[in-house]
Amino acid sequence: MTLDLCPSPALYPFYKKENDSVIIVDIFRASTTICTMLHNGASAIITVPTIEDAMKYKAAGYLVGAERQTRRCDFADFGNSPFDYSREKVLGKEIVFTTTNGTMAIEMGRESRMLYIGAFSNIAALANRCMKESNRVVILCAGWNNRINMEDTLFGGAFAEALSAVGDLTLGSDAIKMASALWQEAKHDPLAYLQKSDHYQRLIDNGVESDARYCLQHNTVTVVPVYRSADRKISALV
Amino acid sequence: MTLDLCPSPALYPFYKKENDSVIIVDIFRASTTICTMLHNGASAIITVPTIEDAMKYKAAGYLVGAERQTRRCDFADFGNSPFDYSREKVLGKEIVFTTTNGTMAIEMGRESRMLYIGAFSNIAALANRCMKESNRVVILCAGWNNRINMEDTLFGGAFAEALSAVGDLTLGSDAIKMASALWQEAKHDPLAYLQKSDHYQRLIDNGVESDARYCLQHNTVTVVPVYRSADRKISALV
Repeated sequence: MTLDLCPSPALYPFYKKENDSVIIVDIFRASTTICTMLHNGASAIITVPTIEDAMKYKAAGYLVGAERQTRRCDFADFGNSPFDYSREKVLGKEIVFTTTNGTMAIEMGRESRMLYIGAFSNIAALANRCMKESNRVVILCAGWNNRINMEDTLFGGAFAEALSAVGDLTLGSDAIKMASALWQEAKHDPLAYLQKSDHYQRLIDNGVESDARYCLQHNTVTVVPVYRSADRKISALV
Repeated sequence: MTLDLCPSPALYPFYKKENDSVIIVDIFRASTTICTMLHNGASAIITVPTIEDAMKYKAAGYLVGAERQTRRCDFADFGNSPFDYSREKVLGKEIVFTTTNGTMAIEMGRESRMLYIGAFSNIAALANRCMKESNRVVILCAGWNNRINMEDTLFGGAFAEALSAVGDLTLGSDAIKMASALWQEAKHDPLAYLQKSDHYQRLIDNGVESDARYCLQHNTVTVVPVYRSADRKISALV
């Protein structure tokens, strides 16, 4: 199979091909947090692009997670930290979710054949699933305000490695080749490597360094979140 | 000074800041070829976005370089190979020039305070010039049809190294940090490193591997090309 990487939502029109399966990645922290929600038993996640949409759901009685520029919005029940979404709070619940970059990336990719959510926490489960696909798979990085970032790019390289471990893999373009080269350099200590990245610094500034550590752990869950455009909900693939 | 890198023309709106100086880079081959033209005595280069524009200039008696998808356009005097532009052909002449990606990048960056053209061939001259700037400098990679590429990214890392050799440097975002990490891995043999890249393969397929070798040589010229938006011409900074 062929794997490619689109490093920013704004570039997706130039990477898109018919019948692609797409993996949305926002390592710090939306895609990791979505995996945690489903792992802890949330029945579905409804992603919405704007704060206004999220507030409407809140008024209608939904549990809402909302973040902008690394901080939880005041009206919301949760922010963008995976630690916010404990089993006792989310089990059996539908959660409405909007974040700075993650939900924008989902909007860009929502017309693809299959839309998965990827993180280091579910990387092996996702690789096993994708190896069953006959199509091209594209990692769509959420980035930061449409700029490229280090943590999502590194995930691309890690995912290429994970796929290679379970089957034959072709790297589709320079973007995924560069991500693979960076991952080979970073993989022995990703946390140390990412300490020079822009967003790690933002997390430190907001007192959530523990989130960064959590978001870099491999295979803490086995869930594969999949987005269904019919009802705009993310749920666990069964 | 602060250096950043914008990996695709389509992302420039998200990297742009007021008073930036911008360096257009299209290593394979437009920016290298522009440096060669001016080194060989061309008085100016008029970049145009479309084939139709270039044909009008041709009809008006100008010498024209025109390339699309790695090949010289039939009507043109030159393609995008630096070897096309010998001193005896270009000395004292204005050359009209349009290429697949390079001229698009120039269009994106044309409103910046200063717009330079960068290549491995003029990297030291350009670093010395940029160190005199008090502003932020952004490398704007031409990429390939708005996708990111390896050779322009590696130049970003090489340029960061060249600037560090002559002054204090801050890396502005993850994009230039990743480019620097890749360059440190590639610099001992960039030609070998780039043999896995997409565009190197395209050059091989078109029989111009010698161009790739030429485009990776450092400091073969001392010219700093600068674009002036008033008359849309590139000439040597004096």
